[in-house]
Order: sequence, then C-alpha cells, then structure tokens
Amino acid sequence: MSESSKSSYAAAGVSIDAGNRAVELMRDSVRSTYGPQVLAGIGAFGGLFSAAALKEMDEPVLVASTDGVGTKVKLAAEVGRYDSIGHDIVNHCIDDILVQGARPLFFLDYVASSKLNPEMIAAVVGGIAAACREAGCALLGGETAEMPGVYQPNEFDVAGTIIGVVERSAVLPRADLHVGDVLVGLGSSGPHTNGYSLIRKIFEGVSLHAVVPELGRPLVDALLEPHRSYLRPLGPALHKIKALAHITGGGFIENIPRVLPDDLSAVVRLGSWPVPPLFRLLEQRGAVDSDEMYRVFNMGIGMIAVVSAEDVDAVRALIPEESFVIGELVSGSKGVTLQ
Amino acid sequence: MSESSKSSYAAAGVSIDAGNRAVELMRDSVRSTYGPQVLAGIGAFGGLFSAAALKEMDEPVLVASTDGVGTKVKLAAEVGRYDSIGHDIVNHCIDDILVQGARPLFFLDYVASSKLNPEMIAAVVGGIAAACREAGCALLGGETAEMPGVYQPNEFDVAGTIIGVVERSAVLPRADLHVGDVLVGLGSSGPHTNGYSLIRKIFEGVSLHAVVPELGRPLVDALLEPHRSYLRPLGPALHKIKALAHITGGGFIENIPRVLPDDLSAVVRLGSWPVPPLFRLLEQRGAVDSDEMYRVFNMGIGMIAVVSAEDVDAVRALIPEESFVIGELVSGSKGVTLQ
Repeated sequence: MSESSKSSYAAAGVSIDAGNRAVELMRDSVRSTYGPQVLAGIGAFGGLFSAAALKEMDEPVLVASTDGVGTKVKLAAEVGRYDSIGHDIVNHCIDDILVQGARPLFFLDYVASSKLNPEMIAAVVGGIAAACREAGCALLGGETAEMPGVYQPNEFDVAGTIIGVVERSAVLPRADLHVGDVLVGLGSSGPHTNGYSLIRKIFEGVSLHAVVPELGRPLVDALLEPHRSYLRPLGPALHKIKALAHITGGGFIENIPRVLPDDLSAVVRLGSWPVPPLFRLLEQRGAVDSDEMYRVFNMGIGMIAVVSAEDVDAVRALIPEESFVIGELVSGSKGVTLQ
Repeated sequence: MSESSKSSYAAAGVSIDAGNRAVELMRDSVRSTYGPQVLAGIGAFGGLFSAAALKEMDEPVLVASTDGVGTKVKLAAEVGRYDSIGHDIVNHCIDDILVQGARPLFFLDYVASSKLNPEMIAAVVGGIAAACREAGCALLGGETAEMPGVYQPNEFDVAGTIIGVVERSAVLPRADLHVGDVLVGLGSSGPHTNGYSLIRKIFEGVSLHAVVPELGRPLVDALLEPHRSYLRPLGPALHKIKALAHITGGGFIENIPRVLPDDLSAVVRLGSWPVPPLFRLLEQRGAVDSDEMYRVFNMGIGMIAVVSAEDVDAVRALIPEESFVIGELVSGSKGVTLQ
C-alpha cells in the first residue's frame, strides 16, 4: 500500500501539532498568573497548587463552580474577537463562588472547536489569564480540544472551573435573613453572559459594527462587553453582607430566591436604578414582555447584596462604586415581586 | 402587538424548563456521590466541600485537571448510548491526577449540546455519578448548556474537572529516576478516550452493531468501552512507584517523556504484552504506520509505572491484576525507543 493512501491522525482532522502550537502561544500568559502556590502548571498532567495556607484556617471550605458563557461565543466567533470571552468565563465563575463568600484560588479552562485555530485559542486563553491575574487567581490548567463534526464550522465553546476557599463560618448566605433586610444592587456591564440566544435573534440582520445611537457605540462592542467580576468592589464589604445573588440565567426571578429561606420573599422596586439603554432596546425591538426581560436578563444589576437595614450605609460606603437600594425582604415563600 | 409575535427565550431555542427538568432527573444520582465533606451541592451557585481533613496533612497539595473525551462523544451520539461517556470523562481525569500521586476529592462536569435533551444529559451525568461513586469522589457541581448553532444537530460535548489532593512529599514523578528503572504496564480497556477521529474514519461505512469476529462482540461495544480508572489497582502500590505515565493523546511517544528527566530515555519492548485485537484491526484496516499507532493509541497499555528494579516484584504483587514488564529507562534525552 502506498504511503499516500495511509491513514494518519492529521488526515482524520485532528492536528496534535496545532495543539502543541496553541500551548506554545499561551504559555507566557498562563505563567503570568502563577503565584508561589503553583508548584506545577502548564505541560503537567494536572496542575499542582499548594494548599498549605489552608492549614491556618479554622475550617477551610473549598467552593467550586463550572460554567460556560452560553451563546455569547457565537457572537465572538462571528466577529473574530475572542479575548473578551476569556474575561467572561473567569468573571462569571468568580461571581458564582463569591455569592458563597469564597475568594478564588485557581481556575481551569476548556476550549473546544471543530478545528484547532492556535491564534483563536491563544486569544481566549489570553483573556482568561488576564482576568485571572486581575483576581489574583492562578490559571492552573486547561484543555483545548479539536472536535471535527461536533462543533459547527468556525464555532467554538468555552467552559471554566473555579476553585475558591472560604472559612466555614463565613459561608454565604447567612442564616439570619429577616423581613426588612435591604437589597443593594451593583451595576452590570451589559447582559454579561445571559440571554445571548434571544439577543442574537432580536438583532438578526442588524449590522454588528454599526454605531447604535442609543448606545453611542457599535452594537458588537456593547454586546461583547465582558461579564464583570464583583470580587474587588464587594471584597471589602463581604463580612457585613448576609447574602449575595448573582443575576445570571433566570434573571431576578430565579436567582434571588436561590438565597432566600422558605419564609421570605423579595420586593424589587423598578425605577430604583437606571436600566441601561441596551435592555430597553432589546425589550422594544424584540417586543419582549417586561416579566420575561426580568426572567432572562440582569436589567443593569449584576449582583444583589442582602444587608441588614442598619448596615446599609456602612456597606455602601465600603463599596468603591455606585450602588443602588433596589428593594427589601418581606414575608412570603421565596418569591420575587417587581413593583 | 399580538402575543404570538412576541419573542420569548423558548422561541430563541433555549429552554430553561428543559434545563430544570435535566437537573431534576440527575439530582438523585448526583447526591449518591456525596460524602460528609459535601456541605452544599446541586442547586447551589457553587459546590461546598469541607477541606478540614487537609489540615491533618503536612503540606497538602491540590491537584487539578480539566479534560474532555474527544470525538468519542460522536460515536456515543450516533448510537444514542450516553452513560459510558460519563465513566470515560471521570476515569480519564482520575488517571490524570493519579500520575501526580493524587487521590480525587471532587469532580465537576460540563455537558453541552445544540438542544437540551434532559434524558441524554441525565444518562451522561448518571455515568459520571457512578464513576465518581466507584472512586469515592463527590460530584460537586456541573453545568448543562444548550447552545443552538454552536454544536451540530444531535451532537454533544462533555468536559470534566477533577480536584484531588496529595501530600507534597508524595508528589509524582519522584526526582530519583535512574537508568535501569523498570516500566510496568497495566492493561487498557480499549482506546480509552484517544484516537476516535481516526477510529471513526477507519470504520467509516462499517456497521457499528455487527459482531466483529476478531473482537467477539459488536464493534460499538468495543469502541465505547469506558476509559479505565487505575486508582484502585495502583492505589496500594503508589508509595513504591517513582513515576506514572498515563497513555493518552500522543500515545507512548509523547506521554512517557513527560515524566522523564532530561538525561533519561525509555525503551519499550514490543511483544512484552499482548496488543488487543482492536488495535491490530485498526492498524490493518487503516493501513496505519506502526509508529503512528504508538503516537495515537495506548496499544493495550493505559498506564505505565516506573519502578526501581528491586521493587518490581513487590509492586507487581501489590497490584491486584495482571501487569507487564514492558521496558526500562536508559540514558538518553527524554526519548522513547520501541524495539
């Protein structure tokens, strides 16, 4: 049998060399996230992270979360802009464990597509590394996968896993939520990572690069704005916060109840914060019910802190940015009333 | 505007209800993996795992790895058999941290497809939970994602992240690898999770359900045989092992050197173990070069332990299954010679 008729792994659509090249391209950005706790990282089978510091804690609790960024990746692929997606996945994960009181230790990523494009992978991982650096979180490991026939051509997906730690006595939500506790909201940077299938449907046929008057910038810039991390603004106030709700998929309606006890509900006062123009635009162009908007989008509030009425001023003073008193807890059964 | 013309999230191809139903279906299997260390799991933003036991260690090191199972998922999707993929991803991850001496603490999964099929997700996660239970590892969290337009119709992808722990002094590979150290191989259960793009190309047009005489069973049964976990067979011998090489993508040629110091190479003696018929079949049908076979597949050896010559008998006696002396270390420069 002649050489040319032989099967090879490359002919089957998988390039181990492209994988190695992707690793080469991202090596430096990954290493820039390493602190002294990282004993082995990129290139090893698994990353090694010294947990010696946990021995100083009374009862360390590891908090872990895996997430993706949804179909926001489609938008990124469409315009070939990949680094912001890296910030999205890291910050989303940081916020998911922050609501349990945890600070991040390390992160691992998974990036897959039908064909391995080393520059695309390096851009995604570069964004991941930058977001990790900002949070003081090591990018301890990851996997890039080439999956011919599983992904659509030119599409890709990203998933991430974060591991953080919290003292057991400081786990959120606390047990002492009461009627009268106040909801303090922090602004979002956009839809974060939620509702992008609906967003893309609503803006179907609209040029992504045209400046939208209501937004004052190209649509794609507004839509790809990365998910915010609330670690830095909320870190200093965490000890005075009773609970945190990360407003992700399911919006206000599904996420606030996740931190409520059975006998409490939340009242959210519409108008108590400025809904950003992008959400108004989505509501109008898509003729989306107002209730549905609050079930899909964060509507300008990406994180809600539940705070004792007497601590509201102190907490807001500890948060180094504008915050909004958007409602309070009432007796009920884990419901959310928008009024 | 009439009700029927309104956009809704469901119309955009994403069903939050199907997601909730998937969670419902997998709740029990996920919970069956919880030990007393799990303080919060399914339904929480992030899983909580008490690390109090780590305080008893001298210097605990967390070992983390993220991986996928490659295009083996395409084969599973083609025949609609999903649970074995769950075993694949967990066992692959267990083996990846075992080679650093670590035992698993907890696992998180990511399962994504173009359309959320709750029964499919539940089968995958059921397999993940079963493999976690076998390893005494908690399935602490996970994410299911519906990504219309990112994945091909009826295809799905799975990624997993494992976190384990090892005493710093017991991290593998050890520094004392020497000329004359012996390679002890353990059998694989099949191609594990590597080379499936090539496998599918080679068997294109062949009925997956036909019994293959050389295999004595339907092709699909052989091809979907899950990745083995070597935690149980190697656990008792770990303290006497100097290094472990998990034979994954890149085969013998790329994986053995990952644990070698700069001044050593490995000699692997072909014929020192029985290459399973499936690999012979792949080599012949695909007319694949013998070298390429050892660069893509495990060829029947899924894990290789590097052991001092004087410990070989003791180590093999501690391993409760057949093992093979397949070669040794020689002076060199991180090479692998098949002879």
